[in-house]
Amino acid sequence: MIPKFVSLEGGEGSGKSTQVKILSNFLASNGYSVLRTREPGGSSGAEAVRTLLLSRSWDPLAEMALHFAARREHWSRSIRPSLEAGSWVVCDRFFDSTLAYQVGGQGAPREVWDQLRAALLGKVAPDLTLLLDVPVEVGLARATARGDTNRYETLGSEFHRRVRQTFLDQAKAEPGRFAVIDATQPLAKVSADIRDTCRARLGLP
Amino acid sequence: MIPKFVSLEGGEGSGKSTQVKILSNFLASNGYSVLRTREPGGSSGAEAVRTLLLSRSWDPLAEMALHFAARREHWSRSIRPSLEAGSWVVCDRFFDSTLAYQVGGQGAPREVWDQLRAALLGKVAPDLTLLLDVPVEVGLARATARGDTNRYETLGSEFHRRVRQTFLDQAKAEPGRFAVIDATQPLAKVSADIRDTCRARLGLP
Repeated sequence: MIPKFVSLEGGEGSGKSTQVKILSNFLASNGYSVLRTREPGGSSGAEAVRTLLLSRSWDPLAEMALHFAARREHWSRSIRPSLEAGSWVVCDRFFDSTLAYQVGGQGAPREVWDQLRAALLGKVAPDLTLLLDVPVEVGLARATARGDTNRYETLGSEFHRRVRQTFLDQAKAEPGRFAVIDATQPLAKVSADIRDTCRARLGLP
Repeated sequence: MIPKFVSLEGGEGSGKSTQVKILSNFLASNGYSVLRTREPGGSSGAEAVRTLLLSRSWDPLAEMALHFAARREHWSRSIRPSLEAGSWVVCDRFFDSTLAYQVGGQGAPREVWDQLRAALLGKVAPDLTLLLDVPVEVGLARATARGDTNRYETLGSEFHRRVRQTFLDQAKAEPGRFAVIDATQPLAKVSADIRDTCRARLGLP
């Protein structure tokens, strides 16, 4: 079957990275070739932009452009060639994270996100985006418990409420691409929901 | 008087950097405060992007996005605050160089330049753009004579002909912003033409 591009999205403590691993292993154990990747980063040029992004503070629009520059590099040098070579792609965050964090969370203009997406990716989009949804308090408590304190985790719960709402609004706006997964459930139930969604939406056996 | 934003553009060996210096000194000697700057780079974040740009090869669209990310940073953290504080700004290259080199020279799509410009700079543009025009053979011979062999200078004369034509086409499309200066003339005549143009266009004494 034609390989698919699946992204996982969600706030801090949504269990995204764990589920990326589980889904990739599930696909591989079914005999599919799988590229497991992440953003920001995912290819060597994009990783260099990631390092630059984290090294200092940026003008909000410059920061969005850097995210999309890295994403274009990641798409054209890693994701697209993998799909063309017959691999599935499972990606930890894609452009919806820039919408949720930079636009929803930090207040950058939505139209700049639309323009950058159109300019750099045209009609490129994941075939399926799994949104791992969890209330902000639950997610932040999980992230704190595991000792994560990245720059977003210190931004306060109002910021994270806007991030979550932006993800949910985008899922509602694009129901054909998104599936919302209740990530408050036990880990095994979350992975089962993800597998069922992939079967229903992508024709996996 | 209200300070102005002046960019100088041109191909290799057009004498641009020398004229940026001469124009800045002329403005300063007339009592104006002047920021003399350049692209890519010009502010510390933008210089970091410049280093990244030069460090490896990029997907053509990612490269354009990096140029505009650096430019947005340069504009919002250096050029705009300088103008607001009452300084003139004289800039060695601005967005027309991305059009000439990446679109005209390397063949990246023109609409991506338009979209990135709109997304990241809106209506921002230099008040005056001085295009130092010189035939390709003359410019390359000058650049070679002074020992310059940057990555563009090794690209062959067809590339540089497209760059020159793109600059000239853009000057024709925006006559209110551009002035074309004959840069084959002796250095002192070129600076005199630049001063006369600034007097006529910007109301300098």
